[in-house]
Amino acid sequence: MTTDPHGLLTAYTTDELLRRRSVKWREFPPDVLPMRIAEMDTPLAEPVAAALIAAVERGDTGYVLPGRLPEAYAGFADRHYGWQPDAGAIRLVPDVMSGIVEILQIVSEPGDGVVVNTPGHPPASYWIDRVGRRVIPSPLASGSDGHRLDLDRLEHDFASGARAYVLCNPHNPTGLVLTREELTAVAALAERYDVRVVTDEILAPLTYPGARHVPFPSLDNPAAARSVAVVSASKAFNIAGLKAALVVPGPEAYADVAAVPQEVSEVAGLMGVLAAEAAFAHGDAWLGNLLAALDGNRRLLAAQLADQLPGVGYHLPRAGYTAWLDCRALGLGDDPARVFLRRGRVGVGSGPRFGAEGRGFVRFNFATSPDRVAEAVSRMVTARDHADAGVDERRD
Amino acid sequence: MTTDPHGLLTAYTTDELLRRRSVKWREFPPDVLPMRIAEMDTPLAEPVAAALIAAVERGDTGYVLPGRLPEAYAGFADRHYGWQPDAGAIRLVPDVMSGIVEILQIVSEPGDGVVVNTPGHPPASYWIDRVGRRVIPSPLASGSDGHRLDLDRLEHDFASGARAYVLCNPHNPTGLVLTREELTAVAALAERYDVRVVTDEILAPLTYPGARHVPFPSLDNPAAARSVAVVSASKAFNIAGLKAALVVPGPEAYADVAAVPQEVSEVAGLMGVLAAEAAFAHGDAWLGNLLAALDGNRRLLAAQLADQLPGVGYHLPRAGYTAWLDCRALGLGDDPARVFLRRGRVGVGSGPRFGAEGRGFVRFNFATSPDRVAEAVSRMVTARDHADAGVDERRD
Repeated sequence: MTTDPHGLLTAYTTDELLRRRSVKWREFPPDVLPMRIAEMDTPLAEPVAAALIAAVERGDTGYVLPGRLPEAYAGFADRHYGWQPDAGAIRLVPDVMSGIVEILQIVSEPGDGVVVNTPGHPPASYWIDRVGRRVIPSPLASGSDGHRLDLDRLEHDFASGARAYVLCNPHNPTGLVLTREELTAVAALAERYDVRVVTDEILAPLTYPGARHVPFPSLDNPAAARSVAVVSASKAFNIAGLKAALVVPGPEAYADVAAVPQEVSEVAGLMGVLAAEAAFAHGDAWLGNLLAALDGNRRLLAAQLADQLPGVGYHLPRAGYTAWLDCRALGLGDDPARVFLRRGRVGVGSGPRFGAEGRGFVRFNFATSPDRVAEAVSRMVTARDHADAGVDERRD
Repeated sequence: MTTDPHGLLTAYTTDELLRRRSVKWREFPPDVLPMRIAEMDTPLAEPVAAALIAAVERGDTGYVLPGRLPEAYAGFADRHYGWQPDAGAIRLVPDVMSGIVEILQIVSEPGDGVVVNTPGHPPASYWIDRVGRRVIPSPLASGSDGHRLDLDRLEHDFASGARAYVLCNPHNPTGLVLTREELTAVAALAERYDVRVVTDEILAPLTYPGARHVPFPSLDNPAAARSVAVVSASKAFNIAGLKAALVVPGPEAYADVAAVPQEVSEVAGLMGVLAAEAAFAHGDAWLGNLLAALDGNRRLLAAQLADQLPGVGYHLPRAGYTAWLDCRALGLGDDPARVFLRRGRVGVGSGPRFGAEGRGFVRFNFATSPDRVAEAVSRMVTARDHADAGVDERRD
């Protein structure tokens, strides 16, 4: 029984995808199966496509305004998370990273320490460093049941003089979704050590049934009230190239969010606003279908790996469409993605790019057809077998 | 005889324009005729619209790449300016202001002085200040024949310790197009005082017949060779909301442009890239029709003002679709735009926002139907007459 009756993951042929102009199908030679960057091989949600085409027909491509996007997000948050943020307090930014960096500049001073979990989204370190703050890496704990937040380590890092904490929840690349209890414990630590929390909640709309996303600013805690969530429709609706995200304050962070400069909001894209507004306001049905289809693939990947590459460690992500694969038992060195690319012609994400804890790991994007997921695993097997044959890729 | 046989300026009714989501038709109450922000009331060029719709149909809205945009701009520069920049050395940025600020961070140090002409584009001061550089305002000269570059003043400002010069050419808001001789004199000064030149050439594709745009980095001069031009299709093709611009080095500035971080390029919009690529590669015919239509309007505005508001000083812009109107003889105070808005319900740009030299001026966007241009002048007359009747708006 298909989990994708609407054919979202099989809508385009490979030839059609190769005509796309975004990163996923362009970053490798055409014989490489591209599973690296977090884009989906799906069509746009109908309300999103309709909003974009109507804008083109109106010649409506001038300077951006936030429009009704804050209200659309507030409605989405209410329906999906039972949270009612104040749309009037929300500010537009081009993307989640921009929003995080703006807020860090408002709530901290140059030289201040900013805690970031590792493994973590590679651009975060660049941007935090660029604005003169100091990254304090805080590793997640990992065990036989996958990754989890290490509260003891977090306390240690907060106590070391951190001024802010960038919390990615749901987490990229592990797909971890923190529970309300874990988030409450984080808030208590932030309160104790006077750390400002900024959350990257871009993956939240992609939380699978069984887990539940809790927006950090919605917690009943003083540190949560002073926190800021940065959200976007870009990951769930595959519109990262259209450039719109929102900065959403907790009840005691309105003034900080209001301090985001208008000039920064103007770097956002009007198509991003119109697409995200349609997505948050009218995209629930499409999103439900998408999640069912992705759920099928995250399980298919588990079955394929168990069958063909049982040495790979894989825990089903609770959110998102990337799998964080522990390939250390394969003996392919610190960066198995290089071996998979060269020997198997499959492009997956390099674990070490997510920090030292990513050594021996790869990130695998399964938001494509089931056939391509299976083919990618098969190419990983080929690569492993070639590597076994004596080719040492570690020195490349 | 119409100058707009394709009806570019009359394609949409006011009701249709009021459904747009960009700034122009949203920033004032609906009874106000909006002539402020630099957007056009035209449809998109056919190649641009086709590129955007094709992207939507491909679901092609993921992470941005520069694609063939640098090559498309290089071809446009060759056909229109006789300049052959090296596409391989060009970098993508979200917008012209972002490009200027990135280059300033590469070619200058915090605390360095950056010369900017006044009147000038308001956001420049904000961004230069934000990155810790010091704005040195350098007024244009003005006389009975309009504005011109004041080379003596520029030398004085260069000599005061400037490290960089942001030259807007063609100039916003005056529509001034510097001649090759003037640009050569600027380059000689920059060479003498070791000032790095960064040019904002966003208006260049909108240069009217009779003037000729010369890209600054194309000059045969050491300072020009070390200069960087920042260009975009956004003004000429009305796609400011799609977020793409290019940083184009002179022959000795490759390393500086190569230092623009990849992370900054990734803030650009994919729709901006695809639209600009289509515009530069296939938009010449549309642009020719547009310029003819705008030329009709810049002359219509002259006739309307001569007839109805002869006290207003107006010199035909040599490029662009904004008129810089000297309203000082009307006695409406430092900011006549406020009087026009309140008493005439016409929204024009506030002169003082462009710097102290803008006192008594307004910026008037004539990229709309001839009827609206005439109506706007008529509303300005109404406002002037009400102000004459004793309402002192200057204290508001």
